[in-house]
Amino acid sequence: MASGRLLVEILSIGDELLIGQTVNTNAAWMGRLLENEGWRVNRCVAVSDEEQAITEALVDAESRAELVLVTGGLGPTRDDITKHVLCRHFDTELVRHPEIEARIVAWFERRGREVLPVNRDQALLPAACTPLENPLGTASGMWFDRPGGVTVSMPGVPYEMEYIMEHGVMPTMRSRLSDAGRFPQRGHRSLLTMGTGESQLAKRLGEMEDVLEENGIKLAYLPSPGSVRIRLTAEGTSIAGLDRAHADVKERLAEWVVSDTGVSVEEELATLFKGEGWTLSVAESCTGGALGGALVARPGASGFFRGGVQSYANEAKVEMLGVPAEMIEAHGAVSEEVARAMAEGVRQRLGADYGVSITGIAGPDGGSEAKPVGTVFIACAGPEGTVCEHHRFGRDRARNQGMAVRAACRLAFQVGLSKKGNAKAAQGVADSL
Amino acid sequence: MASGRLLVEILSIGDELLIGQTVNTNAAWMGRLLENEGWRVNRCVAVSDEEQAITEALVDAESRAELVLVTGGLGPTRDDITKHVLCRHFDTELVRHPEIEARIVAWFERRGREVLPVNRDQALLPAACTPLENPLGTASGMWFDRPGGVTVSMPGVPYEMEYIMEHGVMPTMRSRLSDAGRFPQRGHRSLLTMGTGESQLAKRLGEMEDVLEENGIKLAYLPSPGSVRIRLTAEGTSIAGLDRAHADVKERLAEWVVSDTGVSVEEELATLFKGEGWTLSVAESCTGGALGGALVARPGASGFFRGGVQSYANEAKVEMLGVPAEMIEAHGAVSEEVARAMAEGVRQRLGADYGVSITGIAGPDGGSEAKPVGTVFIACAGPEGTVCEHHRFGRDRARNQGMAVRAACRLAFQVGLSKKGNAKAAQGVADSL
Repeated sequence: MASGRLLVEILSIGDELLIGQTVNTNAAWMGRLLENEGWRVNRCVAVSDEEQAITEALVDAESRAELVLVTGGLGPTRDDITKHVLCRHFDTELVRHPEIEARIVAWFERRGREVLPVNRDQALLPAACTPLENPLGTASGMWFDRPGGVTVSMPGVPYEMEYIMEHGVMPTMRSRLSDAGRFPQRGHRSLLTMGTGESQLAKRLGEMEDVLEENGIKLAYLPSPGSVRIRLTAEGTSIAGLDRAHADVKERLAEWVVSDTGVSVEEELATLFKGEGWTLSVAESCTGGALGGALVARPGASGFFRGGVQSYANEAKVEMLGVPAEMIEAHGAVSEEVARAMAEGVRQRLGADYGVSITGIAGPDGGSEAKPVGTVFIACAGPEGTVCEHHRFGRDRARNQGMAVRAACRLAFQVGLSKKGNAKAAQGVADSL
Repeated sequence: MASGRLLVEILSIGDELLIGQTVNTNAAWMGRLLENEGWRVNRCVAVSDEEQAITEALVDAESRAELVLVTGGLGPTRDDITKHVLCRHFDTELVRHPEIEARIVAWFERRGREVLPVNRDQALLPAACTPLENPLGTASGMWFDRPGGVTVSMPGVPYEMEYIMEHGVMPTMRSRLSDAGRFPQRGHRSLLTMGTGESQLAKRLGEMEDVLEENGIKLAYLPSPGSVRIRLTAEGTSIAGLDRAHADVKERLAEWVVSDTGVSVEEELATLFKGEGWTLSVAESCTGGALGGALVARPGASGFFRGGVQSYANEAKVEMLGVPAEMIEAHGAVSEEVARAMAEGVRQRLGADYGVSITGIAGPDGGSEAKPVGTVFIACAGPEGTVCEHHRFGRDRARNQGMAVRAACRLAFQVGLSKKGNAKAAQGVADSL
């Protein structure tokens, strides 16, 4: 194999990707894994379940990349043709693997399901490949050594692909690269900012960006609704300067930096609250539970999250949170008063240290001149009192809900930081509101 | 332009896609839009922010496709190079558009933000292109006529790209195809099944699949956790047979079919409950609010969704839902008894027609021999009583949470169908449990 970083290409097979019935999360998952390993993903391609398209894309990828990772088209039904295309591409034929067939039969028996002939035929694999074990499903991975590198075919079911990557592909590839004296040579650092746009961030950095570039450090701005992630990348000997560059950029952008690891604000919030031993509760109207759902997405949420109330209907705000009906009548359900009462109500009723609330008009209907679609009030109640923010997001329902969840996490994080007495950091976040 | 269906390729630019920091949802969104239009997406490619990679991929895509859609790399910061690469590719140079600059200035002023020179420079566009308006951001779309077709470049921010596609790209392309006498010639039908795997579905269809193929109708199985979507596709004159084929497949698979439009079970549930005028409430433990979040993701949720309780901690189950503490002590928080009490409690406290509950061990920790990770109890309480299901999902936390949300929707949908007296359909869903 050549020197330098391992060059990888990803080839995803399936009409469902091209017509958008499935989002290609596999490519992103593999990209993260490979990048962390220090390998370089050069290109990701998605093609349809057609022999010519698959073969052309394979030939093309193999002409450039040492490692070609193929996913999809390995199911038992006849729309899945990848295995047959690979046989012709590598000029080989299918052979039956009795030990794999036995595993498939056991797989169905454990689930109390009938084994069909097409399931048994999943044990037919190209003679030229080394099978890679897949205990989570019935389609094996296939490792093909070829001139110039390796091609691996895996099922498109995400957790099956992930298992095969982690247990079959990575260990073998690592030891080959190690044997050849080749090691990863790339580093990253990230920062998460909230409260301003990428051009303002770039302006603040000013000539610092030139200096970084001279030192071989590349800067990328990755905007998403409500935040901009900044990524610093260096290769080879420049990696040594990454930590210093990261600290410099963080200091220059201090007023907007929420996280200096680039992790999400939900994760920063969880780390802070667990570290301090504080508990959190939520009261959600227009997000219907999505904030709580985001908080429990990661393991360990029981270390700080008590629960909450999805007070979508006004009656739920009154009955479950003790918001006075007259207050809703006087100010409307989407108001600062109600947001505060929701946060205080859930904090008290769940006996939590903090309560965070969201009430807003997600859209597309329900807006007025005074309170257009996108109007959201977010409050945080704690031992030191209650704070409330008034946001005007946009017109898109899903985006408004997502921004509200993120803003609520940021507010609770800010209140917590302030309590912790980390005055500078808290002031930074506060300025960005 | 040639006859037949319009051939499209999608080229996404950005290191963040290759290293998996961003999932390529743009390609999926465009795929759905183009497929609905009857156009054919041939290939989706993602490359890094490097001139050579972008140019090679452009040349390659333009050699095959009549319409090449490029996204990404149009931000104001220096890591965004697409505009400059396009200038060299189309042998043209940047010119300033004063009316676009005025719009950019107004955009910042409306938001009370300072306009920087780099923002004004977003009004510099290649002379060879026709600008496409982007009222949601500062990067215009760019339409390039070229030999053999059209190339369009758009920002990578999803809602900006979507606006430009819907208002700039599609209308012009449609009228060109119409002028050339070319029309879409492809049709789809879908079914959503739950409760069995794809090989069992294929076996049940048996020789029907051959008959469909003879009639030019292609069948695809799209498995995802807990369900399999079946898609029927036909082109040209075969489209006439799609409705009949769809009805035949639906009848043959009746016991597993949840939706005959292929929409999600959340959507079927919402349609049923709104149609019948029933209200729904939720009580969520291990999903933390994700079920409610899924129910309010679509507009119109207030037509049936009352709200719920995120009873993550045991105290919340007792205080907010009236689950007896002794019951939790005796049976554990993850038990049929507690699931039933949660569903009945939230139904009663929120005064809803139905209450659905989820309690389980999402993982990765907290499992035991009797109740391993993946154990989830789901109950639905209604005027006719309470039913409860015991699931054993897998080992992955996010997957377990997602499957629990989906299973809860299916259970409520099944109970509702049964109430509606749609005996056959309800029996079908029940058999699949």
